[in-house]
Amino acid sequence: MTEILSDIEIAKQVEPKPVTEIADELGIPASDLSLYGNYKAKIEVDPKTFKKNEEGKLILVTAITPTAAGEGKTTTSVGLADALSHIGKKAVVAVREPSLGPVFGVKGGATGGGHAQVIPMEDINLHFTGDFHAIGAANNLLAAMIDNHIHQGNELHIDPRNITWKRVVDMNDRQLREIVDGLGKHANGFARQDGYDIVVASEVMAALCLANDISDLKEKIGNIIIGYNYDGEPVTARDLKAAGAMTALLKDAIKPNLVQTLEHTPAFIHGGPFANIAHGCNSILATKLALKYGDYAITEGGFGADLGAEKFLDIKCREADIKPSAVVLVATVRALKLHGGVAKNDLNTENVQAVKDGLPNLLRHIDNIKNVYGLPVVVAINKFPTDTEAELEAVDQAVKEYDVDVVLSDVWANGGAGGVDLANKVVELAEQPNDFKYAYELEDSIEEKLNKIVQNIYRGDKAVLTKAAKKQMKKIEDIGLGHLPICMAKTQYSFSDDKNLLSAPTGFNVKVRELKVSAGAGFIVALTGDVMTMPGLPKVPAAEKIDIDADGNITGLF
Amino acid sequence: MTEILSDIEIAKQVEPKPVTEIADELGIPASDLSLYGNYKAKIEVDPKTFKKNEEGKLILVTAITPTAAGEGKTTTSVGLADALSHIGKKAVVAVREPSLGPVFGVKGGATGGGHAQVIPMEDINLHFTGDFHAIGAANNLLAAMIDNHIHQGNELHIDPRNITWKRVVDMNDRQLREIVDGLGKHANGFARQDGYDIVVASEVMAALCLANDISDLKEKIGNIIIGYNYDGEPVTARDLKAAGAMTALLKDAIKPNLVQTLEHTPAFIHGGPFANIAHGCNSILATKLALKYGDYAITEGGFGADLGAEKFLDIKCREADIKPSAVVLVATVRALKLHGGVAKNDLNTENVQAVKDGLPNLLRHIDNIKNVYGLPVVVAINKFPTDTEAELEAVDQAVKEYDVDVVLSDVWANGGAGGVDLANKVVELAEQPNDFKYAYELEDSIEEKLNKIVQNIYRGDKAVLTKAAKKQMKKIEDIGLGHLPICMAKTQYSFSDDKNLLSAPTGFNVKVRELKVSAGAGFIVALTGDVMTMPGLPKVPAAEKIDIDADGNITGLF
Repeated sequence: MTEILSDIEIAKQVEPKPVTEIADELGIPASDLSLYGNYKAKIEVDPKTFKKNEEGKLILVTAITPTAAGEGKTTTSVGLADALSHIGKKAVVAVREPSLGPVFGVKGGATGGGHAQVIPMEDINLHFTGDFHAIGAANNLLAAMIDNHIHQGNELHIDPRNITWKRVVDMNDRQLREIVDGLGKHANGFARQDGYDIVVASEVMAALCLANDISDLKEKIGNIIIGYNYDGEPVTARDLKAAGAMTALLKDAIKPNLVQTLEHTPAFIHGGPFANIAHGCNSILATKLALKYGDYAITEGGFGADLGAEKFLDIKCREADIKPSAVVLVATVRALKLHGGVAKNDLNTENVQAVKDGLPNLLRHIDNIKNVYGLPVVVAINKFPTDTEAELEAVDQAVKEYDVDVVLSDVWANGGAGGVDLANKVVELAEQPNDFKYAYELEDSIEEKLNKIVQNIYRGDKAVLTKAAKKQMKKIEDIGLGHLPICMAKTQYSFSDDKNLLSAPTGFNVKVRELKVSAGAGFIVALTGDVMTMPGLPKVPAAEKIDIDADGNITGLF
Repeated sequence: MTEILSDIEIAKQVEPKPVTEIADELGIPASDLSLYGNYKAKIEVDPKTFKKNEEGKLILVTAITPTAAGEGKTTTSVGLADALSHIGKKAVVAVREPSLGPVFGVKGGATGGGHAQVIPMEDINLHFTGDFHAIGAANNLLAAMIDNHIHQGNELHIDPRNITWKRVVDMNDRQLREIVDGLGKHANGFARQDGYDIVVASEVMAALCLANDISDLKEKIGNIIIGYNYDGEPVTARDLKAAGAMTALLKDAIKPNLVQTLEHTPAFIHGGPFANIAHGCNSILATKLALKYGDYAITEGGFGADLGAEKFLDIKCREADIKPSAVVLVATVRALKLHGGVAKNDLNTENVQAVKDGLPNLLRHIDNIKNVYGLPVVVAINKFPTDTEAELEAVDQAVKEYDVDVVLSDVWANGGAGGVDLANKVVELAEQPNDFKYAYELEDSIEEKLNKIVQNIYRGDKAVLTKAAKKQMKKIEDIGLGHLPICMAKTQYSFSDDKNLLSAPTGFNVKVRELKVSAGAGFIVALTGDVMTMPGLPKVPAAEKIDIDADGNITGLF
């Protein structure tokens, strides 16, 4: 029997290639590289060199509605890129950067798993190339300039009760969720209610990930609404003359980071906005670089396809003017059984009926991708030892009715070799012409957009706005921002806004409790419930187990 | 008439050499380099390779008591290293990293000036290699773990009214000086009074700069006292199991950064603790690397010699077990005139009497270095066009009585060529054997140490402790930390604790209002007045003028 190795043990068995070699093989000129040690590099981006018609094929990896069982989306993305390399294709994977918060909170890296990982994993998980710190500094410079402006005379008449801009830190720190600052003597500013978010929730993060170049980033940052004046009019970062300095702080952070997978496939790891109050995808620039240098660019969206793919397609692809050639929908038999009503402890027992009961979730996502967005799709079953023939057969049968194939993926155990079938299928699908369309148009009213998402993607009855949300909608339209796309902040655990409604619920409304415009990122956030933008540490934080020895070897990180 | 160029204009005229070349010329093996782009690198440190008797000569650059006129200590340090290179010596300069706070606050880089600068200046001033962000993250991880510990049951019985550990951010943000956090619902922790410091004030910064290797750093971090339990006993970072993860976050930050001067002299820029509540010097490791690879290692201390040189010698040299071969004491004629009572607007007029009235300040510093510490010293007059022959002659005459030479330094205008006389003098002094001794011994009682500094260095009558400070002294002795060196937090503008007493005051006491142990950094801070550990932004922050264009060129930074 083979010993099961941990992710870090597997990663440490592989000698990474110098990143200069990875870049060279990909065709990136050496002059475009800024090395960060031997295995990480930032890549210069000249957006003028992006030629739309010569670009590679974009493959989106998304998933069924997430469950406690986990689906393995990043693992599948990394493994698919390795598998494409394995069959001789020039493939590049583009995924998000991990936050420090979870690293010290609950155990778990964000760099794939098993034999489908990106490396060097310690570096990627700890600071990496400093992007998140730079984003935090830009965010907090704006915060300091807001309070300084008020302290120095408040020429813009900013209403301290109506400042929406928060400070951020890349740490799980519940103590900072709600604070009062500016206390003490006169010289310490004006006391006001305030609070912190984690860096990934910063609008600067979303703006950076949606920027098409540095001028676009500066423009987006200038558009950020930090709050309102006493007349209720928006005050922007541009009004505070903060956009130039904030963008200067991001001069390196905007450049995508090149690393590699365990099988030396190039990987761009860049940006990591929240998938609820933001759009949850790596940067546009990383995706475009992957398309420029790769024949196949593999990327992913956060959460399940109702949120992750929807935002990827309706927000990111629209902003970037790109479109996917094919979609991979990841599922596990175990997760389907959970959707079918089985308890987490009973997942190891064969239960074909539970699989069948969970399948409507998978089928609804397939229908959305194929028929709402008009994109070719393949289902990738992320293989577990407990999966049975009969269970897999049930998935096959159901999916076949949509004229869609199911492929077993074993990249966790076998790396690229375990994803050859999936890679071949992806190549075949990507050759097909497709008739991609968005789920809504920007010209639709805010309410129309909300309803199109709720009705066509979630398959609920309608979006119901609270009185407050209606007022906010009117305000957003009044200040001329009604044309922005919608960013839904909804539970990821259900198609509905009730996390307990698994599989494929029907007959529900989605209650929009708050509409908040992220004018810098360029979307309207629709909040359907409480969203946690500052996590806390658990009873025993992972940090307690992390250590470093005299030679600089880190243990306990994974 | 020559046009006066700004620092950034001068810096941009110079094509930097690849840092690999700088390292190679210095004899650093290529395998010890981690590149951060082409012009910055982190250097691996193997403390076992530090051989005390083969080390280069350590030259400390310090200054007279600072005035509004400025002295040009960093400029002199950089220029002296260039001048030593100019006369064929293998010289390396080691100085502190700048903080983001001042960059966005009041205009002014921290990378030297004129033709004596370190480059690339934009990078060094903005994030550099991420050290300060890593220090901030380590500091804030500990803070999050403290509050999480209390939230999760407070097994260590930490008294929330007696937590001394603050969060930090690398920003001038007065709004955060005094806050209440943990507000809102149950899940947000316990409400308590709290506050932020700027990153350079973090004890993690001081500990990193005083660490002799990574194990020593972990030990120091473990020793950090975060506050006290309900029985008044200290609680440490080690008790919270935070030291391993904090040190892991610092795995790269502990490695010194190599860059170059405008004349391609190697420069280690690493660490930057406050010069009041901390010791104000670059890291021990950077200084030791400079000594290992250079025949002359030029470094500096913060503020004037009463604080900067005192802490450099009594704290840093003691901890590192190194000693200087010579000291350069920087002064300007203009600053001497300010000490002599001239108003700032009258500095352009010749005033020999004012110079004579200010000279006792210079002479007292000379006497301290030569006769208290037993070190050879040369006075470097940082040249200004307004200096007259008669004024310079007055300086010469007075200093001669101490058997010390005065050398004109013109490195600001002429780079290394402007510092040849100084370099030759330094070489001559460094050849002399010296009889270096500390100003106090660790075995002295806390009160004895304070009195030795006040009496022998400041030349006041005695240290007077407030009742509170006496109680704190007793406590520090009780918990077994009375053997630590003293870190004086006193105004830098006077030998006394009254910033208005210029030149060389006598007949004063120094009132110690608070004693605070920094058990991680390894010193006892003696506070004689209010110390600002979180600056604020001015009416018009420098940030408002900073911009970046479509090609990534930053303007307005200097």
